Amino acid sequence: MLRSNYLGVCNLKKLNRYILIWDKQIKNSKSKDKPVIRPNPESIENYPHFLTIPTRWMDNDVYQHINNVIYYSFFDTAVNHYLIDRGLLDIKNGAIIGLVAETHCNYFSPIEFPEIVRAGLRVSKIGNSSVTYEIGLFRKDAYKTSAQGHFVHVYVDRESRQATKIPLPLREALENILVNR
Amino acid sequence: MLRSNYLGVCNLKKLNRYILIWDKQIKNSKSKDKPVIRPNPESIENYPHFLTIPTRWMDNDVYQHINNVIYYSFFDTAVNHYLIDRGLLDIKNGAIIGLVAETHCNYFSPIEFPEIVRAGLRVSKIGNSSVTYEIGLFRKDAYKTSAQGHFVHVYVDRESRQATKIPLPLREALENILVNR
Amino acid sequence: MLRSNYLGVCNLKKLNRYILIWDKQIKNSKSKDKPVIRPNPESIENYPHFLTIPTRWMDNDVYQHINNVIYYSFFDTAVNHYLIDRGLLDIKNGAIIGLVAETHCNYFSPIEFPEIVRAGLRVSKIGNSSVTYEIGLFRKDAYKTSAQGHFVHVYVDRESRQATKIPLPLREALENILVNR
Amino acid sequence: MLRSNYLGVCNLKKLNRYILIWDKQIKNSKSKDKPVIRPNPESIENYPHFLTIPTRWMDNDVYQHINNVIYYSFFDTAVNHYLIDRGLLDIKNGAIIGLVAETHCNYFSPIEFPEIVRAGLRVSKIGNSSVTYEIGLFRKDAYKTSAQGHFVHVYVDRESRQATKIPLPLREALENILVNR
Repeated sequence: MLRSNYLGVCNLKKLNRYILIWDKQIKNSKSKDKPVIRPNPESIENYPHFLTIPTRWMDNDVYQHINNVIYYSFFDTAVNHYLIDRGLLDIKNGAIIGLVAETHCNYFSPIEFPEIVRAGLRVSKIGNSSVTYEIGLFRKDAYKTSAQGHFVHVYVDRESRQATKIPLPLREALENILVNR
Repeated sequence: MLRSNYLGVCNLKKLNRYILIWDKQIKNSKSKDKPVIRPNPESIENYPHFLTIPTRWMDNDVYQHINNVIYYSFFDTAVNHYLIDRGLLDIKNGAIIGLVAETHCNYFSPIEFPEIVRAGLRVSKIGNSSVTYEIGLFRKDAYKTSAQGHFVHVYVDRESRQATKIPLPLREALENILVNR
Repeated sequence: MLRSNYLGVCNLKKLNRYILIWDKQIKNSKSKDKPVIRPNPESIENYPHFLTIPTRWMDNDVYQHINNVIYYSFFDTAVNHYLIDRGLLDIKNGAIIGLVAETHCNYFSPIEFPEIVRAGLRVSKIGNSSVTYEIGLFRKDAYKTSAQGHFVHVYVDRESRQATKIPLPLREALENILVNR
Repeated sequence: MLRSNYLGVCNLKKLNRYILIWDKQIKNSKSKDKPVIRPNPESIENYPHFLTIPTRWMDNDVYQHINNVIYYSFFDTAVNHYLIDRGLLDIKNGAIIGLVAETHCNYFSPIEFPEIVRAGLRVSKIGNSSVTYEIGLFRKDAYKTSAQGHFVHVYVDRESRQATKIPLPLREALENILVNR
């Protein structure tokens, strides 16, 4: 019941009011309804790399905030932009490609069009053929994530789709944003 | 290195060939590259409820299979369709709404437009205000999931966005597809 | 001011009430505000081929009906499904591909998740290298379109991207749904 | 056959080579295949207002450029951003809302993730209750549109969904970008 209170907070004023209510609820709580254990929102200094992603009108759903699905589009874009920008992913001709094996997201507070999102990116694990990225999404000027999650790429040969060792230049770029926490 | 082999298999013929290679790799494997622990693809009898969801042309991405983000649109649709179809969610006027607190997906094998997806749905946990759904996505005639994950809704008051007790009729509908595993 | 009345009608009851008001407005109208000339909603017998397309939760936008952008995804899907289903478009290996040169849509009345759309498809013009499709979108059991538009494909060589003559088998399939109106 | 040559041009070098081939084709052309009459790509000085819209990974489709549907998301975003930014559209509480009556797009040359699009916006017609916007999409540093089209909003009362006179402050903001051509 705790974390769920973070949900749906639409502005900072509301948030502050919310935290008060929330603190009170903790003190009074005798609820047996243990929430799913959720991570805490992380801080901006935990991410070494950022991409700015403006929201779009149609990202908003009937509840007038960004639909949960769209957050993964931000993850996807942050990861692939990092690679393409460094010349490490050639969509059309590259011999190896990254396929997505697992994704995850925790949602703490809503984001709404026309807000601009900053997507923080780090690498938490580099295997032989797989990489785990962690992404935090921040509303403008926010210090804590509105949502955060992870994204696992497995590198495969484009034709055979067999798992492939991560090439050295890619590995080096990943190590640049590797954060051991 | 194991599970990653499942990725990118594009047809059944390829899949069979793949499993052979994969078995061989297991026997020969001395890899230190322990993969992220991944669940096994589940079987169709593990899901009590299904929704058929055709893919769309633009679901396919540059790798010519459904983009990882779109899977969550299938989750989202399966859950909300179940509720609306039973008169338990009134998008426009309902006093309480479900906000998404957490989502997760494991991808085992690709799905491609124009394939038709069957989304299996079950409930794994009902709290005071939160519900955890588990969704399995099956390609036509498939017995095992191509992808599977979970989706956590927290019920809140539409106006105050405070966590709210799940109403009885909703709870009953959730219990109908509750699977204790 | 006329046609705009069609917009935003959310159910049949409302629609009937609407048509009454609309008729009255026509009689009384001395408005100088000539509307953009809009086509009339077409009838279901004007389309020789149909594809059923269920809506998805995230298709709905903040106004709680399908976002205008999504309609083009229905157009796109109807056209490409027709071709792939007949073995006339090989996404991965085909030597020629259809690029989109022009699209257009008129919106008459809203569609809302979880409604199921029937997309009517016909061909109105076959050139040397280009095809013009016309698509009508019908709500369940509706006799008139909720929206309709067109979609122009130009066939090009996949590699050179130069305009290419439409191959005979494709031309024949297009002629099967060619409607001269 | 003419304009279709513009399609699928993937970079400036290709474009230049293309224009040469195209000019040659015009001179030599005895084709009877009259193309659909298409407008010419417009220049950047024809648009009084701009919004920068970065592309996203999943905007790319199987042909490795932005899917035709997504262009309308850029139109949608450019229009609504203009209004919200000036305080003229209150998604949640505004008494009147703009419903989309008609949209249109001509595609001249592809755009690809991770390119950044500049969306040029102007108003071409203001009626009693309707507005016609014209949007041009420019690739970075481009002088001519990659795609252009129009977008018609009809203002209606949020509750009754009846056509409503455009309020004065909105009308003034529209006149600020009204271009008579």
